[in-house]
Amino acid sequence: MSRISRIELTPVAFADPPLLNVSGVHQPFALRTIVQVWTDDGNHGLGETYCDETLLARLTAVAAALPGLDTFDLHGLRSRVADVLRAERGAEVGGMLNLQDPVDVVLSPFEVALLDLQGKELGRPVTDLLGGAVRDAVPFSAYLFYKWAGHPGAAEDSWGAALDPAGIVDQARSMIDHYGFTAIKLKGGVFPPDQEIEAVHALAAAFPEHKLRIDPNCAWTVDTSIKVAQQLTGVIEYLEDPTPGIEGMAAVAAQTEIPLATNMCVIAFAHLKPSVLADAVQVVLSDHHYWGGLRRSQLLAGICDTFGMGLSMHSNSHLGISLAAMTQLAAATPNLTYACDTHYPWKTEDLIKPGVLEFADGSVRVPTGPGLGIELDTDALGRLHEQYLACGIRRRDDTAYRRTIEPDFSPNGSRW
Amino acid sequence: MSRISRIELTPVAFADPPLLNVSGVHQPFALRTIVQVWTDDGNHGLGETYCDETLLARLTAVAAALPGLDTFDLHGLRSRVADVLRAERGAEVGGMLNLQDPVDVVLSPFEVALLDLQGKELGRPVTDLLGGAVRDAVPFSAYLFYKWAGHPGAAEDSWGAALDPAGIVDQARSMIDHYGFTAIKLKGGVFPPDQEIEAVHALAAAFPEHKLRIDPNCAWTVDTSIKVAQQLTGVIEYLEDPTPGIEGMAAVAAQTEIPLATNMCVIAFAHLKPSVLADAVQVVLSDHHYWGGLRRSQLLAGICDTFGMGLSMHSNSHLGISLAAMTQLAAATPNLTYACDTHYPWKTEDLIKPGVLEFADGSVRVPTGPGLGIELDTDALGRLHEQYLACGIRRRDDTAYRRTIEPDFSPNGSRW
Repeated sequence: MSRISRIELTPVAFADPPLLNVSGVHQPFALRTIVQVWTDDGNHGLGETYCDETLLARLTAVAAALPGLDTFDLHGLRSRVADVLRAERGAEVGGMLNLQDPVDVVLSPFEVALLDLQGKELGRPVTDLLGGAVRDAVPFSAYLFYKWAGHPGAAEDSWGAALDPAGIVDQARSMIDHYGFTAIKLKGGVFPPDQEIEAVHALAAAFPEHKLRIDPNCAWTVDTSIKVAQQLTGVIEYLEDPTPGIEGMAAVAAQTEIPLATNMCVIAFAHLKPSVLADAVQVVLSDHHYWGGLRRSQLLAGICDTFGMGLSMHSNSHLGISLAAMTQLAAATPNLTYACDTHYPWKTEDLIKPGVLEFADGSVRVPTGPGLGIELDTDALGRLHEQYLACGIRRRDDTAYRRTIEPDFSPNGSRW
Repeated sequence: MSRISRIELTPVAFADPPLLNVSGVHQPFALRTIVQVWTDDGNHGLGETYCDETLLARLTAVAAALPGLDTFDLHGLRSRVADVLRAERGAEVGGMLNLQDPVDVVLSPFEVALLDLQGKELGRPVTDLLGGAVRDAVPFSAYLFYKWAGHPGAAEDSWGAALDPAGIVDQARSMIDHYGFTAIKLKGGVFPPDQEIEAVHALAAAFPEHKLRIDPNCAWTVDTSIKVAQQLTGVIEYLEDPTPGIEGMAAVAAQTEIPLATNMCVIAFAHLKPSVLADAVQVVLSDHHYWGGLRRSQLLAGICDTFGMGLSMHSNSHLGISLAAMTQLAAATPNLTYACDTHYPWKTEDLIKPGVLEFADGSVRVPTGPGLGIELDTDALGRLHEQYLACGIRRRDDTAYRRTIEPDFSPNGSRW
């Protein structure tokens, strides 16, 4: 028996390139909360999640309520989180999603830390707590973005600009050369659909063996989505969130053979029944950060399997602790058959000790050490925390940041 | 790391009273297979399941394929079972249910034994592997049966006959006096519905504080089910399997406020989507013996929670290993809010060492020792195995047995 004795939450910031999306552009720094949990028998567990101010306040309140909790008592964790949050409603995550019920998102990093601790207590990787690894390495996709050459006023980053099909193909080539990805996702919703369709066709011509996806983050109407789907049939493996809402997605799904994927209209367990009844989505992009941790994400996986939906994995800008958790989860999820999304190539700094989570042939080898299989670099944690204190950013707001550069910018949701 | 080194399967038989149901009457002995798994580091895990000849042959074939498997590799267990069974289809369980895919039922006792071993490796109860106990004791229901006084040609058993409302009320009283149950289930489908409705009303009058249920095992047509429901509205907490099939259940559900429960039309993951789409059932009676073990039963629980269905627990005649597994599962399943069914009071012999699984106030205290928290009595195992060899019964067949007594008997399915 081992119980939580102490929890430390550390907000951190890490440099992020000017990646464009439907809402605006990534700010110069992305924020994360690092969760460290110690037990009375001296073990140490890690978690990582979003870091907007509201979430950080909730994580802090919950952390104060957790000492004494048994490391295996995940149901107890849930009830303590629910007790602390009580009637609180609403949670914005990733700058674009709004959850009605904050319990799953607040719970997640603590659940991951507890699984890390459980694995250490057992001397086994987290995969073993999730039913065992079904693969030794987890494939990820090349996550392409339209982007500026650098943040305004700053030097160009190493990726350079990508603002047309040729720029996107170049970006894909350098990412694939470096990481070996075999699937490609283009973040769209930035330019009118014809330009983005052209980019996808250019990718298909340049990488005929790669699986392709595009995700305009609901920038299109139902009619536009149907027209785009017609032009991309046979070209992409799934079409992610072309249009908002379960009803809209169902209207598109009825008119195309391309599976529709989502991390925007089905982002909580409450959305699954209406989506199944409407046959709105054919692939759910799971994300343990807001689906309530790894065990709840396995429930989501089982639901997808049971109700005939595919399963892929969503990503927001993240560091190595999240990558470790995503990799452990994906390795122990038999029906996670699509390459997972990750923003990992876009970051230039991390706070875990190197050598464990390395990409080869587009995949990350599953750590086999106890728990998550990673170690925190406390010096790096200190540096990224200082960066958080210095950068002044306290919540993600891609729209506000873009408006500091283009005052007339308005988000592209359903614009086209 | 600990791996399976050896597996022993033991078919056993234990005395069973002449309990009547839609198919006929319980034979003088009920059969179970006891699964013992040893690991290379000397641990010992237990499982229990059905024992019809076909299942026993499949369990034997699978057991031969499991040595070397890591005790935490539940996904590996599943793929080995699927490999051994390959294209085999169909599995009869409990004498009344037919599964298309045998993997989940064959897998189950091995999964339970692995969880028992995992708990022993950790020094923690199985509940901890299932997210932690949410209750210290698991409530069960009084499971009433119409019955003869004794098996033909044998002495009367201690329960005596119950063939009318007064007999059922007497049976309920002695079961409740002894065990303290606070919920009552009547197995129906034996007499015409009016007589069984009368019995339920008699129970309601005698036990006004108790929750009531009736389960005619699909003996009724849709129209009859609707009429019975009208007469039992406000009297029972749920109506179990009044009529066959998802379509039939949906037709009844549309005409009554009483939640419909099932362990007959939704007995595998493949049945959940059609049932949800038709809104056929409001309560699923889980049973780890055919839902693929405890972890898969937790998936079922999560699905019920997500899709707005209640959850209860089904039972067939069983011994103490199954009761331990049912108790551990129920204790770690937050939304299992109905009292579980059990045939436990009907048996007179067992093969686990006494003192752990005791009923008080209708509930079983959740064992807190490592794994399932029980120990096998190997002498008793030997006795019940000898009884298996001697009794001559090799598969459950309540209809054939009843016909040895009443040659003209035909099963009551949808008779009324």
